[in-house]
Amino acid sequence: MQGVILENISTPEDLKRLPESDLPELALELRHFIVDTLATHPGHLASSLGTVELAIALHYVFNTPDDKIIWDVGHQAYAHKILTGRRDQFQTIRTYGGISGFPRMDESPYDAFGTGHSSTSVSAALGMATASKLQGDISRQHIAVIGDGSMTGGEAFEALNNAGVSKANILVILNDNGISIDKAVGGLSRYLVKITASPKYNRFKERVWRSVGGDEKETRSKNFFSKSLASMKTLLLGGPNLFESLGFRYFGPVDGHDVRHLVEVLSQLKNLNGPKILHIITKKGKGMELAERNPVVYHAPGRFDAETGEQIRKPEGDQPLRYQDVFGHTIVELAESNPRIVGITPAMPTGCSLNLMMEKMPDRAFDVGIAEQHAVTFSAGLAAQGMIPFCNIYSSFMQRAYDQVIHDVALQNLHVVFCLDRAGIVGEDGATHHGAFDIAFFRPIPNLTICAPMDEHELRDMMYTAQQDGMGAVVIRYPRGLSVHADWKNEMKPIPVGKGRCIRNGKDVALLTIGHVGNQAVAAAETLASEGIEVGVYDMRFVKPLDTDLLNEIASNYKAVVTVEDGCLQGGFGSAVLEYYQQRHHEEISMPIPVVSRLGIPDYFVSHGSVPRLQSECGYDAAAIAQNVRKLVKQLSL
Amino acid sequence: MQGVILENISTPEDLKRLPESDLPELALELRHFIVDTLATHPGHLASSLGTVELAIALHYVFNTPDDKIIWDVGHQAYAHKILTGRRDQFQTIRTYGGISGFPRMDESPYDAFGTGHSSTSVSAALGMATASKLQGDISRQHIAVIGDGSMTGGEAFEALNNAGVSKANILVILNDNGISIDKAVGGLSRYLVKITASPKYNRFKERVWRSVGGDEKETRSKNFFSKSLASMKTLLLGGPNLFESLGFRYFGPVDGHDVRHLVEVLSQLKNLNGPKILHIITKKGKGMELAERNPVVYHAPGRFDAETGEQIRKPEGDQPLRYQDVFGHTIVELAESNPRIVGITPAMPTGCSLNLMMEKMPDRAFDVGIAEQHAVTFSAGLAAQGMIPFCNIYSSFMQRAYDQVIHDVALQNLHVVFCLDRAGIVGEDGATHHGAFDIAFFRPIPNLTICAPMDEHELRDMMYTAQQDGMGAVVIRYPRGLSVHADWKNEMKPIPVGKGRCIRNGKDVALLTIGHVGNQAVAAAETLASEGIEVGVYDMRFVKPLDTDLLNEIASNYKAVVTVEDGCLQGGFGSAVLEYYQQRHHEEISMPIPVVSRLGIPDYFVSHGSVPRLQSECGYDAAAIAQNVRKLVKQLSL
Repeated sequence: MQGVILENISTPEDLKRLPESDLPELALELRHFIVDTLATHPGHLASSLGTVELAIALHYVFNTPDDKIIWDVGHQAYAHKILTGRRDQFQTIRTYGGISGFPRMDESPYDAFGTGHSSTSVSAALGMATASKLQGDISRQHIAVIGDGSMTGGEAFEALNNAGVSKANILVILNDNGISIDKAVGGLSRYLVKITASPKYNRFKERVWRSVGGDEKETRSKNFFSKSLASMKTLLLGGPNLFESLGFRYFGPVDGHDVRHLVEVLSQLKNLNGPKILHIITKKGKGMELAERNPVVYHAPGRFDAETGEQIRKPEGDQPLRYQDVFGHTIVELAESNPRIVGITPAMPTGCSLNLMMEKMPDRAFDVGIAEQHAVTFSAGLAAQGMIPFCNIYSSFMQRAYDQVIHDVALQNLHVVFCLDRAGIVGEDGATHHGAFDIAFFRPIPNLTICAPMDEHELRDMMYTAQQDGMGAVVIRYPRGLSVHADWKNEMKPIPVGKGRCIRNGKDVALLTIGHVGNQAVAAAETLASEGIEVGVYDMRFVKPLDTDLLNEIASNYKAVVTVEDGCLQGGFGSAVLEYYQQRHHEEISMPIPVVSRLGIPDYFVSHGSVPRLQSECGYDAAAIAQNVRKLVKQLSL
Repeated sequence: MQGVILENISTPEDLKRLPESDLPELALELRHFIVDTLATHPGHLASSLGTVELAIALHYVFNTPDDKIIWDVGHQAYAHKILTGRRDQFQTIRTYGGISGFPRMDESPYDAFGTGHSSTSVSAALGMATASKLQGDISRQHIAVIGDGSMTGGEAFEALNNAGVSKANILVILNDNGISIDKAVGGLSRYLVKITASPKYNRFKERVWRSVGGDEKETRSKNFFSKSLASMKTLLLGGPNLFESLGFRYFGPVDGHDVRHLVEVLSQLKNLNGPKILHIITKKGKGMELAERNPVVYHAPGRFDAETGEQIRKPEGDQPLRYQDVFGHTIVELAESNPRIVGITPAMPTGCSLNLMMEKMPDRAFDVGIAEQHAVTFSAGLAAQGMIPFCNIYSSFMQRAYDQVIHDVALQNLHVVFCLDRAGIVGEDGATHHGAFDIAFFRPIPNLTICAPMDEHELRDMMYTAQQDGMGAVVIRYPRGLSVHADWKNEMKPIPVGKGRCIRNGKDVALLTIGHVGNQAVAAAETLASEGIEVGVYDMRFVKPLDTDLLNEIASNYKAVVTVEDGCLQGGFGSAVLEYYQQRHHEEISMPIPVVSRLGIPDYFVSHGSVPRLQSECGYDAAAIAQNVRKLVKQLSL
């Protein structure tokens, strides 16, 4: 399965011993190995197929790990992982205790910088290059591999702007495949197509590259090579290009699947000091026909047939819809009757299912690119002019637009509905992607209404409620994965803002939950009931405003309260409950505080693995909730 | 003082009735009015002097408030405020109950979108333009006025990238003065100088503008005007420029102080659909010699002599240093003995006093431009290679880099020291600038150490502690304004991480404080002592990790605890104390929770005014703390 060349490659040192002529064959073997492994061990397929030759060429040419490679986003780094000592663990990728799906500094010295979110690589490379300079090491190279999609993220521009005037030894490799997770959008993307398509430019470029090739390239051609390339570009493209405007030396475009040519080009660039950008053209999904044709589907296809590439679908049966699809169908339904509703996503239309609206109402649904900050302020602008934007951003990516929610939306009390998909533990993507913090970081912000549905009917009702006139900024958080019922399509009705509901009455102990994790509490209550312990279960629905009437009622009827949330413990939903009870106790000493036990994500970065495994580790799955109640009952002698 | 033209201008309608020939005189009068007013009512001077002609021309040409003007950052919008109904309130600017120093939607319909933080205007304008299009209004123009400094902020790039492929009616006016608050830095800035300096280009451009001028311009010249400008640029600058690469039509550069020419140019652009950018050249501080020469000093000069421009300095005497200066001197002192220390600021070297280090150690102190996200990941890159970055960012601007602190620093447990200047209520800058949320938003993040000094000696000790080997990510927050002691320069010593200290013993009630606001608690304790109420005062120093030993001791010795913080109540320091006591009570029921009263910033956006006035409003100045204790004493019958 590994191929005769690959089976002897465990480290970049092994790789460097191969003759250049073996590299194309190695690329084929690596690609097969990735496809074969991912067929049964799901992961990010198409991106990693696109960078096989690049990973080989980089480790062949550069002196890693002393030279630093930073893989932006990082889900395209599988070939890199395989070539750097992790071939035999590769089948554990993304599983509990196995290797991560993203680069991690604590996993390998070859992972120079951890990634997961996009557009950080140039900043990190510039930081490292600056450190090297200060430490007197002027030969070390610092390489950021960044996709054309990630290049639209504002941080990448900030870094280019800063790097362009530095003399830092950084090489930005723009991995241009015209696609991020969904199709890349925006002015930059069009511009890259324009550069790439100039035939005159490409012909001339080839001649220049070839003329400096061969064995004597290192010594003889460096000056000629760089000078002629610069002047050629001025001639043919006319004037500095966008990257040169910012102070970079620009090289390319180059075929990113011609591994020998990549080796040649990188060998040249290795010895050029200062900030430089190499533009390579690759194909997402390269080498696997179905993936090449459907790179969006094959971004992370789940299990598939290694021979044919066909996805292996589970029988659907009466399985509930995913929350994201309920969102996608429901926003269309709402928008059909409310012409003020629009939809916004920063580059995740298929991930959040806004693609359903983009197909049906292309004028009213916007993919703004990898640009969370812009997505939020753009929504604020729409709201300032009377529209009702539903801005869908994954919880962990919302961290990118925190200031914009505060400064542009909440402060101005604008009617924007934030739908936070992937809130809570997300599973295999791991620490960079868990939506652990949103309740805690949004709760302090004035003017926000924050809620979470326990099932898809509540999601629909919350979306319905959120679009009503007079609502300000609303946050609706819901998890990755399946919703609850076989029939998702209830008739939508408004929910009173700030009102929770009793799911189950009990005595002594009440479980207070927020969102989908409430289903774990119900399961725990059922288990406990079978043991003779009757606990109450309350779906609080709103983190802000809290249902203080219900909290008062609960305090009168129960001695202890267990809060359960799929979010961090510090400052989260449980803390909101605590704050309220303490305030009530302070204002009226006769109102005692029930014993409050808080369950949620503890104070460390939770790693990757399946959602049930991780929720069990964190101590808030049904079993852990039940166990917590048993302890409480014993402790309080109830 | 207002001048004969200005005194008759209350609204843009009045302005539009003036003959064009009066506009230069109006500009002079407006400038005098701003200078005269700000001499005794301090505000942002230099930026607003630079945009007088632009504000006049925009309101003269466009149909405001139906056409939308968004002033990026917004401290340059004083002339706009004066021309739009706020002339007579202008002297109340930035004072409690007076008009804001920034545009605010709730202050005037002419303030189309509130600003304060940079680089949001293009996103907001695009959102509005998109709304107008959906609403069938195709003639409305949406104008973003953005400085060259703000243009380096990543969000602006995200917006340009998205706008460039839209057909939205937006006009971006790039107000290029080569300076943000400090001197603008980076590749973009150099590039703008290059465009502007091309004499061939400028001569030709003038001819084109003039040739389309005169009275018939509207009807005859639109096509010629745009076509010839485009081809002229291709000829002379060679190829599309950076903005055209992204899909904008680019016009300029134009003299931003020639008001009649601006009127002419804007009248042309008014009728052009689609995304377009007008590049104007202005001088920050225009018309006031000292301000033109020292735009950084005159950004917000405080009181000055209206005639001469000389700043009126308070006698310094034994006044303590500002916290920011203690930071500035101390980082130099530390860096002199620890070669691994470097300093980073996103465009605020004089605001945070990193300029002291930039002067003494130019290789080791970095102004990365208005680029908070990049500043943090750049710091992470430096730390990954063994440096110890001190990254100084104002608390409210840190909201811009929240994800980077989580994803790039804390998750990788990198040794980066974040110094959060302007933490807590900042005063006159108001709601956009208060550092209200940092304790609450950072407390949930694993691996962070979070502390706040009660005086400048503690600040120095915390900085000393933070740079020691083995520390991970550290947050040190301190406020705007003066520190405490006449002699700031103590001999630095390490503070045990997570350890607070007792300032004053008492009985029944203990005040638990974090940071500089502890001095208010001490004052309150002194007042109370004079009334016979002895309260304890504890400077907890660390929000994370909390000093649980000290909390246990306090719980045994006092019946009630009052937490005091210059930060928001939800999820803040007081909540951390509450969480700990509740957890202790839960684990051991015999450990009761003291009554906890939490003082801090309440759950609404606090407006502008002096710091003492606002802290009083929020209820945590010395008087309010004392009052709170008196109530507690009564209530608990202590």
